[in-house]
Formats: sequence, C-alpha cells, structure tokens
Amino acid sequence: MKLHFINSFCYNPLSGSGSHVKDRITIQAPATVANMVCGFDVLGFAVNDPYDEMSICFTGKPGITIINEDEYNLPTDPERNVAGAALLAMLEETAGDIGFELRICKHIKPGSGVGSSAASSAGAVVAANWLLNNPFTNEDLVRFAMNGEKLASGVKHADNIAPCIYGGVTLIRSIFPLDIIQLTAPPLYVTIVHPQIEVRTSDARGILKQQVLLKDAIRQWGNIAGLVAGLLKSDYELIGRSLEDVLIEPVRSILIPGFDKIKQLSKEAGALGGGISGSGPSIFMLSKDEETAKAVEQQMHSVYERLSLDHHTYITTINQQGVKLIV
Amino acid sequence: MKLHFINSFCYNPLSGSGSHVKDRITIQAPATVANMVCGFDVLGFAVNDPYDEMSICFTGKPGITIINEDEYNLPTDPERNVAGAALLAMLEETAGDIGFELRICKHIKPGSGVGSSAASSAGAVVAANWLLNNPFTNEDLVRFAMNGEKLASGVKHADNIAPCIYGGVTLIRSIFPLDIIQLTAPPLYVTIVHPQIEVRTSDARGILKQQVLLKDAIRQWGNIAGLVAGLLKSDYELIGRSLEDVLIEPVRSILIPGFDKIKQLSKEAGALGGGISGSGPSIFMLSKDEETAKAVEQQMHSVYERLSLDHHTYITTINQQGVKLIV
Repeated sequence: MKLHFINSFCYNPLSGSGSHVKDRITIQAPATVANMVCGFDVLGFAVNDPYDEMSICFTGKPGITIINEDEYNLPTDPERNVAGAALLAMLEETAGDIGFELRICKHIKPGSGVGSSAASSAGAVVAANWLLNNPFTNEDLVRFAMNGEKLASGVKHADNIAPCIYGGVTLIRSIFPLDIIQLTAPPLYVTIVHPQIEVRTSDARGILKQQVLLKDAIRQWGNIAGLVAGLLKSDYELIGRSLEDVLIEPVRSILIPGFDKIKQLSKEAGALGGGISGSGPSIFMLSKDEETAKAVEQQMHSVYERLSLDHHTYITTINQQGVKLIV
Repeated sequence: MKLHFINSFCYNPLSGSGSHVKDRITIQAPATVANMVCGFDVLGFAVNDPYDEMSICFTGKPGITIINEDEYNLPTDPERNVAGAALLAMLEETAGDIGFELRICKHIKPGSGVGSSAASSAGAVVAANWLLNNPFTNEDLVRFAMNGEKLASGVKHADNIAPCIYGGVTLIRSIFPLDIIQLTAPPLYVTIVHPQIEVRTSDARGILKQQVLLKDAIRQWGNIAGLVAGLLKSDYELIGRSLEDVLIEPVRSILIPGFDKIKQLSKEAGALGGGISGSGPSIFMLSKDEETAKAVEQQMHSVYERLSLDHHTYITTINQQGVKLIV
C-alpha cells in the first residue's frame, strides 16, 4: 500500500511569507503501547512497526477534507473522524480561514489496541504543524490530538498520543495540567500479537472498578516506581520484576482469549514481561534481544493456532523519534 | 548526651576464630522520612540529623540485654523493645547460643514521625551483624528489623528501615518478596519540623480508607513515577511538581495543626515541596539550597509560634551512608 496524492491540487497561504514552506507534508505516525502494564493511563511507548502514513496540504478554503486511502472505511466527516477532530481543535487556535486536505493510509488496524486512533490524531496535527511552519509546541499538539482520543473512547487520555508525538517511552504525570516526561530506556525488543477479535476501548474502560483496594494501589505504585527506575538505570531485571499489574490486567485480560497462557509461555521463553497493550486485544512482550523476541512470537503463534484464532504478530523495537517527516 | 559503656564487660565468642573481630561495635542510626509524599509505604530517605547512637557487645550467655542511656524510658524487655524484637529475629537465624548487650542512646524522639523505631531496629541489627563479622546481607537485616516495625505499628513496613540501612533514597518495590532499589538523588536540603503532639502510627494508619478511587490512584502513580524520574534525572522542577499526595495527606494532615499553612508558606519561601514525614506529626520540606531551607524553617517557626505549639526543627541533608560504624 502506498500514498498516491503527489499530483493533487495544493494551495499554500504561507507561500508569499518569504519563509521556507512546503506545499505538502507526508508523515509516518507510529503505533504505540499504552499503560506498559503497571502504568495505567500514564505510561506509553512508540514502536517502529506498524505505522500509519498521512499527507496533508492546504485547500484554499476553510475546513477539513479527509480522504481515506485504505480499506477501513473510517468516517470522512471531520467531526466523526479522530484525525479530523484533532485538526478542528488545532484550527480553533489558528488565525485565518485555513483549510486542510488530509489523506490517510492506515496500516494500524483500528481497534487493535496499539494506538490506531492516536496515530491518526497525532499524525494529523504534527503534519499540519509542519505545514504551518511549526507555530505549536509538542504539548499543544498533544492537547489537540486528545480530542481525537475523546471521540474514539469518550475520554481525553494521552498515553498513546504522547509517545506517538515525542517517541520513546513517555510518562504523562498529569493531564490537567499537562505534564509529559520523556524517559530514556535501554534497547528493548517488542513482540506484539493482535488476535482478530474486537475489544472496544469504551467497553474495556467500562468493566474497570472505579474503586480499588489501597493495598493493591500501593503494590501498583511500587511497580511503576520500579519500572521507571529500571528504565532510567537500564536495569533489565528490575524492568522485568516491575512489569506486574494487580489492578487492571486481572479484569481486562478476561476479554482476551489465551492471555494467561501467552504471558506464561512468553516469560518461559525469556521475555522480561509484558501484558495487555492499551485496552487490548493486542498483547505485547518485552525482550532484551531479537532472538528472545522471536521465541516469544513462536509461543504466541502456538497458543492462537491451538485456539484456531486469526492473529497478526509484529517484532519491533522502541521508536525513539515519534511522528516522522517523510517529504 | 554521650554513650558511657566503653569499660563494660564484653565477651567475644569469635575472638578465637582467627578473623579480625571487634569486641564492641558503636554505630549511629539516622532518622528517616518515609513515604516522601506520593510514595506511601514504598519510598523513604535517610537524613544526617538527628540520629541515634547504639553500642553492642556479646554477653557470653544467650538472650538480649537492653540498657537505655537516654531519657525516654523505653521498655528493656527485648520482646517489648523494637531493637530487641529485631535482634531476636536475627538470633533465630544465627547458630550458637549467642547473646548481646545493647546500649541505646536515642536522640530521635519516639513518635516524632522520622523513623525513631526504625533507627532502633535497623541500628541494632546492623551493629550486631558487624559484631558477628557480617554473616547477613542488607536484605536479611531489613527482614529482621521489620519485626521492630511490626511491634511499633502492627505492620511490617520497610520505608524507614530500608533507607536507614542503605542510606539515600530507597524504593521498596515489594515487601513480599523483598525488593529494595536505591535511587540516586541530586543534592537536597531537608527542613523538618516536629510539633510536640502525639500521633500514633497505628492511629494514623487506622484513619486511612481501605478503598480509594481509581482516578486518585492513577494521579498518585503518575506522581511517584514523576518523582522517581525527577530524582534519577536530577530534575528539581519535576521533583517539586511530583511532590503531591491526593490520597493519604488529605486524611492524615487533619491530625497535624497548621499543616496546610506550613506547606503553603514553605512553598512560597521556595521549597520544592514536601508533606507529612511518615505518619506524622513531623512535616518535612525539600529545598535546592541551604538558604531556602533556612527560610522554610523560619516559616515553620512562625506558624507554630502563632499557634503557641512547642516544636523542634532540623535543617539537614540526605544521608547517603545509612547506619554508620563509629568504633
């Protein structure tokens, strides 16, 4: 699949401004893994594969035009499309009667749990910001893109948006006010399996208890503190020990066939640990080296073949760059 | 106050073993600040002032003899004394009919909320381990010393014990199994005020709700993740922003007169942030430099003078060493 819009009409209102401007921006927006097991709603990381491709240009008239170049039949009404919602939020803070044409070629399957909606929303606003000659900060872009997440799941959350825009592992210490911290990490291989079942983010949120035991919360914040320390100290063993979720996983994993078996066999194959990617159904596992990541993939295959469940796997690494300018 | 036991009788069963052994060990055990605002039950740090002094020697007969060299009239029955309880746990894992005489000169007032019981328990077992020629690991010593905490508060917790033994800032990721992580930190000045009121650790635990809102727990683990990142990255601003406790402080601070005012005025005076030390009643504030730490102390004085409340203050720094061998 490839984008085919290089010859479509582009109008650039910035062309006469004297600064070096582009008529069209093409980007890649990476998939992301939210929560990172013990960091529900606050941790996430970007991966190098899969990613969406998008292209944006000015139209010469106010408003957003969305053209889908993929098979997913997502809405083209900007108010019902997550990328559109993000761009509309951006236009509200942009002077002048500006309009964009956005062409989207998604490779990240919607509903797979690896930040498909975030890639659309974040990719769109990062591309538009480049087209506008960078008037907005990354924090602004996260704010705009969260409108896409609200449309997708009913909640403004940034644990996919932030790593998609910043790259690497990000901590969203706080949403209001927004406080995003980039965390360094040692080299990590990521094995992802996407079983072809549907888990709606809104359903996965709906089944969570709104009250939790203090003792469980203490265990959870001990783990996230351990995970952050493990990442910053490049301590693989500590990362592995800290990848434990006593609150969310026990509830959500019920929605994912074979989850416990995949986790057990992946760890036996040498994975540091892992769990549900975002709200699922994808499962991710972290490994120190590619050989282990491949052994983990084999275990994932074996479980879902036994269950006769269609699935896709990815072996990838952490994407350090976030949304990437192509042309 | 000084220890006066240098001429008391000491019997050393290891003397004939050929290794270099001491007949008597004298140590200083530092005060500690547990919780560190957003790390309830999992974070703590040691300070250079105040500290307890202890001296230990063999007696030649099984059992523990405790001699208090201070004004606090603590129990000398080893089963009712926190240092005794810790030593008894150690003796259970020590071969031979060994007995200790422990002399304690406490400078950390019991019940002040800066780890007085932990200093006794941890100091005793570290000293005894040195006397025995170090058969035990630091983790073993934490296990033994937690028996003292259980005697004092009804719960085995390590957020004072671990920093007292290891020094610096420590994360107790897990108690069962024990997983202690040392966290580096940039230079920090600590201002502590101890209002002369009594808050029992068991009462301070009793008023906590056993269930918390998931959204508050998320905010809390965002903050602890931010604090750990801030410490390891030496990012003072991030440390300051992360020193927020939405769960425990709102409940416990009610027991401490003037708490909100001290916090507000300390931050206005330039403190990065702070909160209740352990279960209180002491309050601690962190600052980047000594001048700010002194300005914070002035604010603490002013609040408690207005309330006519007796209080002690300390300006100190983080103790990197933990329990210290003197002779």
